[in-house]
Amino acid sequence: MSALPLTAQDVRAAAASLHGVAMATPALTSVALREATGYRVFCKTESLQLSGSFKFRGAYHHASSLPEDQLARGVIGASSGNHAHALALAARLLGIPATVVIPDDAPAVKVEGINALGARIVTYQRRDQDRDALVNELAQERGLSVIPSANSLHVMAGAGTAALELLTGHPDIATLVVPLGGGGLAAGSAVIAHDLHPGIRVIGVEPLTGADTQLSLRAGRRVRLPAVPVTIADGLGHTTPAELPWQVNSQLLDEVVTVTDDEIREAMVFAFRHLKIVAEPSGAVALAAVLSGRIPPPHDTTGLVISGGGVDLARFQTLAAPFPEQRSHAHA
Amino acid sequence: MSALPLTAQDVRAAAASLHGVAMATPALTSVALREATGYRVFCKTESLQLSGSFKFRGAYHHASSLPEDQLARGVIGASSGNHAHALALAARLLGIPATVVIPDDAPAVKVEGINALGARIVTYQRRDQDRDALVNELAQERGLSVIPSANSLHVMAGAGTAALELLTGHPDIATLVVPLGGGGLAAGSAVIAHDLHPGIRVIGVEPLTGADTQLSLRAGRRVRLPAVPVTIADGLGHTTPAELPWQVNSQLLDEVVTVTDDEIREAMVFAFRHLKIVAEPSGAVALAAVLSGRIPPPHDTTGLVISGGGVDLARFQTLAAPFPEQRSHAHA
Repeated sequence: MSALPLTAQDVRAAAASLHGVAMATPALTSVALREATGYRVFCKTESLQLSGSFKFRGAYHHASSLPEDQLARGVIGASSGNHAHALALAARLLGIPATVVIPDDAPAVKVEGINALGARIVTYQRRDQDRDALVNELAQERGLSVIPSANSLHVMAGAGTAALELLTGHPDIATLVVPLGGGGLAAGSAVIAHDLHPGIRVIGVEPLTGADTQLSLRAGRRVRLPAVPVTIADGLGHTTPAELPWQVNSQLLDEVVTVTDDEIREAMVFAFRHLKIVAEPSGAVALAAVLSGRIPPPHDTTGLVISGGGVDLARFQTLAAPFPEQRSHAHA
Repeated sequence: MSALPLTAQDVRAAAASLHGVAMATPALTSVALREATGYRVFCKTESLQLSGSFKFRGAYHHASSLPEDQLARGVIGASSGNHAHALALAARLLGIPATVVIPDDAPAVKVEGINALGARIVTYQRRDQDRDALVNELAQERGLSVIPSANSLHVMAGAGTAALELLTGHPDIATLVVPLGGGGLAAGSAVIAHDLHPGIRVIGVEPLTGADTQLSLRAGRRVRLPAVPVTIADGLGHTTPAELPWQVNSQLLDEVVTVTDDEIREAMVFAFRHLKIVAEPSGAVALAAVLSGRIPPPHDTTGLVISGGGVDLARFQTLAAPFPEQRSHAHA
């Protein structure tokens, strides 16, 4: 095993910097979940986090770690919406300007949230424009500090604090299941999880059509998907794992499993009915994997992260439409 | 002021009995809520409580306080759904049988939840049958202990623990806004709130068509509405205040305000979009009062209780339909 770029100490330092700023989100469980799976499951609800996703943890931690003069000039970041929203809120709390680069088809609820926080929004076309080039260009032009959505030690460390809270509250968790997009959440979670419980199993979940990390693990190197994946999980549609998270995930993830869009929809409906929370498609993939039997045994006590809730009501209704009276898991 | 039937010590005793059993639900806030209201608001999300509502607190506390031989024979309770669900879960956790009496039109999600918990369900017709007579008859027949949904010191004390948690976590709350149905939540909340902060303002919220407590306060005595109120807030459709809560609420509530069904719908949509939680109509009335400007000044830091999340997805979609892209409060 080569040296990891991220240590448990980094995650603990992030927790200290986020103390009293980020929300210690609850770990929900329910009889319905127990009956649907047959085992104990705790859902860390980062959808309830400030800005609506776990991304706030990393964005705030990275930004607040900048030298003061750099911080004052402002920050810039790009994302499908959640990291941008998180960065806008972090900047507002830190009293600095933020520029965010988001796709022109980002959910309205995310765009409105960013707008209200006073961030400058630049849009790009998801399939045609090179987002990272645009970010770097704007950053150089204006002296802004780039806060990546995943490819940053601080961002990974911040993301890992959600798992730190979950595993500290429920030390009997033997399997940890996390959504896998850029890989920052998985990397931060895996590092702190293995530190707290060396024998723990950490499983990443990708959408079936966007399994860039799963394929990379099989190939033993980072591979790139031929095209931007088509999936309802807009936050997980990456074509290749980000470099720093990959260095961690390729060594610490026990497995990466995939879920279909229908399994994601069903999990969103389950979360609505039985956990009383709103999960966006990307945020629901770990729950989808658990509910759909995608997690290989042993089925011991399991923790999972519901990573975000940024979905418009109209879109939620469309996505949920095939499952309005879904009963397969609808026990309690 | 006559002696109150409930003391802050009762609420603290309930908190001790619920410690490690009930969930310490989070107090959510958001930039959107701040911008929509102009002041700081913390939402205590009892919709995330075990069984999906604050009712679990009172049901468990009352049941677990029964003498052992009585407890073993089982419990019975009646409600529009939430208290019944709560009682079914409390009984399961305590390992005793439960019988619950619910209206034949209770939301499916509540009925399924109760079923899954193994409780015996007896249905009645909301408009024609005397629910309490039915409960007492069954209780006598089978030696069951009646756990009322509001008219019990233990149930009021248990309900008050939600406010205890909220006000302990946010001691700057100067106005506390709570849904008002049977009145147990309001009574328990008012007692502990006045103990913690003697100058606090406690405001109850009723649906406009079911303002039995507001009218009773104006009349200076308990009045009875001529018919079961028609409102989407099925848990608050009471015709008269329950006796014990009334003894508290008539002395400690600063005000009772009302909200329309449309205001409730809008609050449900707001909770979905900006707080990422599912609130049932009855559970959303305090949020509705705050968002609709029904709370009289001063507008200082406000706490409110979102009391339950028991709403079917199909019904939620119907209720939310007029407000799918509601923008009036849709800032962040």
